[in-house]
Amino acid sequence: MKLVVVLICLLFWTVREGEARPPCNYPPAQWCSSLEIATACQVEHQCMEYQRKKDADPVMISLYYESLCGACRGFLVLQLFPTWLMLNDIMNVTLVPYGNALERNESGKWVFSCQHGEQECTGNMIETCIMHSLQDPYRFLPIIFCMESADNVTAAAQLCLQVYEPLLPWDNIKNCVNGDLGNKLMHHNAELTRALNPPHDYVPWILVNGKHTEDLEDEAMNALFNLICNTYSGVKPKACAKPKGLNSFPKCMI
Amino acid sequence: MKLVVVLICLLFWTVREGEARPPCNYPPAQWCSSLEIATACQVEHQCMEYQRKKDADPVMISLYYESLCGACRGFLVLQLFPTWLMLNDIMNVTLVPYGNALERNESGKWVFSCQHGEQECTGNMIETCIMHSLQDPYRFLPIIFCMESADNVTAAAQLCLQVYEPLLPWDNIKNCVNGDLGNKLMHHNAELTRALNPPHDYVPWILVNGKHTEDLEDEAMNALFNLICNTYSGVKPKACAKPKGLNSFPKCMI
Repeated sequence: MKLVVVLICLLFWTVREGEARPPCNYPPAQWCSSLEIATACQVEHQCMEYQRKKDADPVMISLYYESLCGACRGFLVLQLFPTWLMLNDIMNVTLVPYGNALERNESGKWVFSCQHGEQECTGNMIETCIMHSLQDPYRFLPIIFCMESADNVTAAAQLCLQVYEPLLPWDNIKNCVNGDLGNKLMHHNAELTRALNPPHDYVPWILVNGKHTEDLEDEAMNALFNLICNTYSGVKPKACAKPKGLNSFPKCMI
Repeated sequence: MKLVVVLICLLFWTVREGEARPPCNYPPAQWCSSLEIATACQVEHQCMEYQRKKDADPVMISLYYESLCGACRGFLVLQLFPTWLMLNDIMNVTLVPYGNALERNESGKWVFSCQHGEQECTGNMIETCIMHSLQDPYRFLPIIFCMESADNVTAAAQLCLQVYEPLLPWDNIKNCVNGDLGNKLMHHNAELTRALNPPHDYVPWILVNGKHTEDLEDEAMNALFNLICNTYSGVKPKACAKPKGLNSFPKCMI
């Protein structure tokens, strides 16, 4: 099941299968007007989401990184992706793979050199093309996690794409990586990276709501989950709360 | 990079590259006797780990589940795996794929029937064989996450194995799945599931430190990260703490 499907399903699994509910005799405009009505119409989670979105903006995490930098991989695999899995309803993630790379223009084409060699340039480019092709973080983040947590980032790319996007041909990504599109997209990453203010002097370079400080960087690297929960100014989702008195989830009954 | 390598690396990346430290002129027996000495000898993290292990037992999470049950997949993908990625130093995970399946003995061989059909029995068996073959959760949990978060759990198995264990031939797993070993291992899962006390009446059926209650189940399903942090009785790891005054991590400098 695609992650996005899992997430949507969870929104609907608000009531244990077979449990009796009062009937929903209300028009949609009233569905979120009280907990009673929301419960009757089986839209408690949806109303909470709606309320949350009205409440506050999600926390924006921007990661400027390189595909083969060990500390970048550590952050992506051990903090960013797991936190996003649990808190994606209150956070937005932007990834800019380029980092400490350099570019020069040769006869109208950009040529890149990367801190960890040619393989890193390939990894950056594959991830950029996958993000451009899929657009939706629910679709591309699991693939990038899969690559970055694998033994060999670039060798895993095709397998990871096949696991999560079996209908997207690898050739589409390869054409982007080797063609003008990839070249243009990576130049854009270079421009975004150079536009950082203050300029980055290491990677991973993390922005929280567009801002980078040493304190925020260290907090994100060590305890991103709590940083997101604490930074989010709206009603905290259940995952952030001290677990007491939460709604029960449905189960697969015997 | 295998997850385990990433984790080990993180333990060693305690000091920003190039930062000056006092010299380590102490024998190992003194390395954890003060923060000053630990810092000089670059073993702060290792000493914290040692202290933590001396302090308290890890929180044990046991999951009785079925490979194709939607709520099981939701818990595994959106709570258990991401929490484990961030808190594996204070938690132990046990997976028992069987759930609401049934078994009967036919001429000395066990025949299984699963709630979500034959495909689920295959998924349960593949995951059981992968766990038996690899033993180490740092090696098998990413593969099981990969399968359970994919569109098609069983079809993804071979690809996921190739991503994370490129040297383990798929044929080894297939032989286990179709042979006596898998049959025996699945019967053991059936026995473990039947031995639950109180007996399970749905899946996912979660034990926290060997105990199942409705409250613990709901807390785990909704907010496992905080449940683990709150249940762990030792010194909390940084990921659990409110992020302030944490050590800085190393970066890939320009």
